[in-house]
Amino acid sequence: MTYCVGLKLDAGLVLLADTRTNAGLDNISIYRKMFFFETPGERVIGIMTAGSLSVTQTTIARLHEAIHAEGADETTSIMRATTMLQIATIIGNTLAQTRREISEQFRDLQGYEASASLIVAGQRAGDDMRLFLIYPEGNFIEATEDTPFLQIGEHKYGKPILDRVITPATDLLDAQKAALLSMDSTLRSNLSVGMPLDLAVIRKDDCRVTSARRIAEDDPQFRAMSAAWSEALRESFIKMPI
Amino acid sequence: MTYCVGLKLDAGLVLLADTRTNAGLDNISIYRKMFFFETPGERVIGIMTAGSLSVTQTTIARLHEAIHAEGADETTSIMRATTMLQIATIIGNTLAQTRREISEQFRDLQGYEASASLIVAGQRAGDDMRLFLIYPEGNFIEATEDTPFLQIGEHKYGKPILDRVITPATDLLDAQKAALLSMDSTLRSNLSVGMPLDLAVIRKDDCRVTSARRIAEDDPQFRAMSAAWSEALRESFIKMPI
Repeated sequence: MTYCVGLKLDAGLVLLADTRTNAGLDNISIYRKMFFFETPGERVIGIMTAGSLSVTQTTIARLHEAIHAEGADETTSIMRATTMLQIATIIGNTLAQTRREISEQFRDLQGYEASASLIVAGQRAGDDMRLFLIYPEGNFIEATEDTPFLQIGEHKYGKPILDRVITPATDLLDAQKAALLSMDSTLRSNLSVGMPLDLAVIRKDDCRVTSARRIAEDDPQFRAMSAAWSEALRESFIKMPI
Repeated sequence: MTYCVGLKLDAGLVLLADTRTNAGLDNISIYRKMFFFETPGERVIGIMTAGSLSVTQTTIARLHEAIHAEGADETTSIMRATTMLQIATIIGNTLAQTRREISEQFRDLQGYEASASLIVAGQRAGDDMRLFLIYPEGNFIEATEDTPFLQIGEHKYGKPILDRVITPATDLLDAQKAALLSMDSTLRSNLSVGMPLDLAVIRKDDCRVTSARRIAEDDPQFRAMSAAWSEALRESFIKMPI
């Protein structure tokens, strides 16, 4: 499985993804699940993926191909599309088409269906930041003031902390902290989500990846935060009246 | 859906269940999901249920009938069975049989299958306390030193707090607190789990329900705990380094 979360705050976008993929419990690998397409200052598009690796890799590869294809235009290339809505539509269509083709290859395997979901975040210069969750069928929903974060994959373990602390006014540092704590809870409770992590920030109106880093298994900062959070939870727990 | 959790500590058993059932989002009701069978001082059996209400109600009703049936013996009545393992086996068989019969009624509705899982906890005088999770097929697993709690229903939201604080040495008060906080996270993040709650404690070697209470929506103690926990989480979050 996977856990990816995207947050749309007044100050910018925060994206966090794990990197574990597995085909059965005895076949575990590391694959990047966060991808960027950018023309710095003009547009930035971040995509995070969850689901069948063959679907997500082929979808990303086709998006790349479409950008460089002869005759690429605003209806086929996410680097030429004129709005984030158009970009989400192109990505949704590419995902749906890829999923259908691959599922068709599995038609003799009853009950099995290739599937994938994506989170798409970004901004074009002069337009608003947008954050979408794209379903396997290609349709999508969008983050709003009321629901400023979207999750794909193993989303339940890490939802309580986000529900409690995230509002659109949350600053980018706190948003990264909340995303990492949400991931930390998921990592502890579900083996199918694993380190390393990819964490990125797109500050409002930067129209580029403002910062992106890979957090390794032995990252001292993440380990310290994880330990401090455990300690804080235990202390709060002990002090809690019943 | 449902959230039920059972904890097996050195000091006793703690059981917590919500009461919300729904057939679609517009048909929501309150049904008890925690049931006790006891001969105080000799045996106590607690059962918590998750899944199709028709399956769980019929299963509980059949367990009652079997106790009072003519010719009831240790292979058919959970009040005569001589070990907790035998009790779990009878309950598992009853559940599996009920589920099969009801699923059969749905055979024309493709893709729909009636299903349910149970948590069974208890002790017979002179024997050890036991805690089982019974699957829809009737097979079961048991809580151990390494895994002292079992959950059914919407278990993911409330797992991180239990993973962090519960060990077999946890005392009964802290175990109730942890179970309630686990439920609180689930209630906040998932509408299909709802108040009121049923909370019960079976102290080791009591062989009876030591305490059981229903926690209503407006229970001042639970509300205070829920608010204090939110406040503690927020405070810990603010103080957390990144």
